[in-house]
Amino acid sequence: VFSRGLQTVTLIPGDGIGPEISVAVMKIFESAKVPIQWEERNVTAIQGPGGRWMIPPDCKESMDRTLIGLKGPLKTPIAAGHPSMNLLLRKTFDLYANVRPCVSIEGYKTPYTDVDLVTIRENTEGEYSGIEHIIVDGVVQSIKLITEDASRRIAEYAFEYARNNQRNSVTAVHKANIMRMSDGLFLRKCREVAESFKDIKFTEMYLDTVCLNMVQDPTQFDVLVMPNLYGDILSDLCAGLIGGLGVTPSGNIGANGVAIFESVHGTAPDIAGLDMANPTALLLSAVMMLRHMGMHDYGKKIETACFDTIRDKQVLTGDLGGKSKCSEFTEEICRRVRDMD
Amino acid sequence: VFSRGLQTVTLIPGDGIGPEISVAVMKIFESAKVPIQWEERNVTAIQGPGGRWMIPPDCKESMDRTLIGLKGPLKTPIAAGHPSMNLLLRKTFDLYANVRPCVSIEGYKTPYTDVDLVTIRENTEGEYSGIEHIIVDGVVQSIKLITEDASRRIAEYAFEYARNNQRNSVTAVHKANIMRMSDGLFLRKCREVAESFKDIKFTEMYLDTVCLNMVQDPTQFDVLVMPNLYGDILSDLCAGLIGGLGVTPSGNIGANGVAIFESVHGTAPDIAGLDMANPTALLLSAVMMLRHMGMHDYGKKIETACFDTIRDKQVLTGDLGGKSKCSEFTEEICRRVRDMD
Ligand SMILES: CC(C)[C@H](C(=O)O)[C@@H](O)C(=O)O
Ligand SMILES: CC(C)[C@H](C(=O)O)[C@@H](O)C(=O)O
Repeated sequence: VFSRGLQTVTLIPGDGIGPEISVAVMKIFESAKVPIQWEERNVTAIQGPGGRWMIPPDCKESMDRTLIGLKGPLKTPIAAGHPSMNLLLRKTFDLYANVRPCVSIEGYKTPYTDVDLVTIRENTEGEYSGIEHIIVDGVVQSIKLITEDASRRIAEYAFEYARNNQRNSVTAVHKANIMRMSDGLFLRKCREVAESFKDIKFTEMYLDTVCLNMVQDPTQFDVLVMPNLYGDILSDLCAGLIGGLGVTPSGNIGANGVAIFESVHGTAPDIAGLDMANPTALLLSAVMMLRHMGMHDYGKKIETACFDTIRDKQVLTGDLGGKSKCSEFTEEICRRVRDMD
Repeated sequence: VFSRGLQTVTLIPGDGIGPEISVAVMKIFESAKVPIQWEERNVTAIQGPGGRWMIPPDCKESMDRTLIGLKGPLKTPIAAGHPSMNLLLRKTFDLYANVRPCVSIEGYKTPYTDVDLVTIRENTEGEYSGIEHIIVDGVVQSIKLITEDASRRIAEYAFEYARNNQRNSVTAVHKANIMRMSDGLFLRKCREVAESFKDIKFTEMYLDTVCLNMVQDPTQFDVLVMPNLYGDILSDLCAGLIGGLGVTPSGNIGANGVAIFESVHGTAPDIAGLDMANPTALLLSAVMMLRHMGMHDYGKKIETACFDTIRDKQVLTGDLGGKSKCSEFTEEICRRVRDMD
């Protein structure tokens, strides 16, 4: 999808610190002269015909046209009574694969080094089906839904991702010893798809075992593929290994090139507007986006400037252990980007 | 339940390395002159009337009489077609609380120090309901079952545990943002029970957030209470922080004093019979058992001998970084126990 002209990307700044980290990313993109123009859209919960929750029509229209979105954090108070807008976006555009690379960042100390793995989470079904019933008073059922199609689709995505990103192995994460039919189906599809990717090593592991091994030695893992809820858990766990959600990018991928890249941290209302936020997660998500759009050189340049800034420790936001403002950190990355020319 | 006479405990040595680590525990108990006699029972899958899977009647009869069990690892090949015997035991005796203290062991190096927390897992329902259907070809449902009674019972257990063990806080772990009805019910019961334990601090956290924070700083956690599957995951993750399942004890607690304590590692068939296994997890589970039975002094003595042996690093099994045999490690603990007299 590489193009010489200006491509349009839908920008959803989001709530809390969302707008200021979006500004940071736009500035850095400008300094790198990335041939992208932004189309800004707000996302709030809208109730459509029949009470169905939906995203605002102008955002839907924009995404349908641009196919590519970059999104800051969205607040979803449970009390609001509407579903998480993050989930609604994934659903609206059938973004079936959530991809989160977790790579140790030089200079940002955590108990682990050399983490280099990717979690690939099925993003549309499982425990996130939204189907729940009260059976009798005091007895509630939630339905975990696993389908052959979604399982095959995510397995294929994972193996193709591995192949296209020079990764050697895919691990299917499951609890088929307990949920023999549902996780069993997921696992069977992974095995079947593995047959067509003889160049990629395939292994299967129980979720609990993965969690245990992950905190003991994350370097043993490469690409991990799993149903929705397990991905929610494992992707956050892995983010913790490399420094948290403030430095971890995320992409939600659908069919035919549609994708939304997002920082998965919260809206941090306590520091919103104070020029204190760390834009790294959104920036690295934007770098993932550039690669997805085929703009590898721009992606590499911005990523390098970001990692170099963190490694040199001179200009860091508070959460990264520094004293600089968001705007100063941003300007430092811009400076390094310009210096590369 | 303290008694001066000999108390009987049902011993289920289990498969693989189970018998040899059971012998180790029995030897150490003997050296400490613990007033316990063992009644050994095998557990294999038996099919009762109507094809229902059950544990052998002589094991059931023993447990019904002694109320207390100590259990090594049991193998359950998925292919065998019967449910996990571990689960069947929990079910048979309605062992509704799985308790796993995770405490850093001095001298056994991991990326973390000062871990000191307890996971309390609802052990009877949730995703472990065993209810699954094929809806149509290629579409499978698993039922996650959450009841008011089981949720209240586990919440009460957690708060009482905290109070009786001089712990200050209980954190309820959930995904009520996604499973609003089922996890919502669980959470509501935790909140209600918290009202009656004003001396214990109560907090609520999303499972993904707990996992992330756990690997960043486990010392912030104290007692954690959660539904079945989340407990499966989190207890293994936490075990990883302190050195793995080889050093982590576990207890399954039911009503009226019934309990089975178990090592939760595998059967390790590759080293079975070679005098190489590490009996620590089963031994520390047996120490939990002694405390449950009110035999605190015996528990303390054995625990101290075990921890001292690990801290001094002279006599360790291979998995602990040493070169000693299981029998040598065992004898070293016995020696230290005898020296305390
Ligand atoms: C915001 C929330 C609904 C979401 C989830 O549970 O999937 C988040 O934790 C994530 O991982 O993107
Ligand atoms: C053996 C297996 C069925 C069990 C579980 O999933 O509960 C195990 O992982 C555990 O934690 O005791």
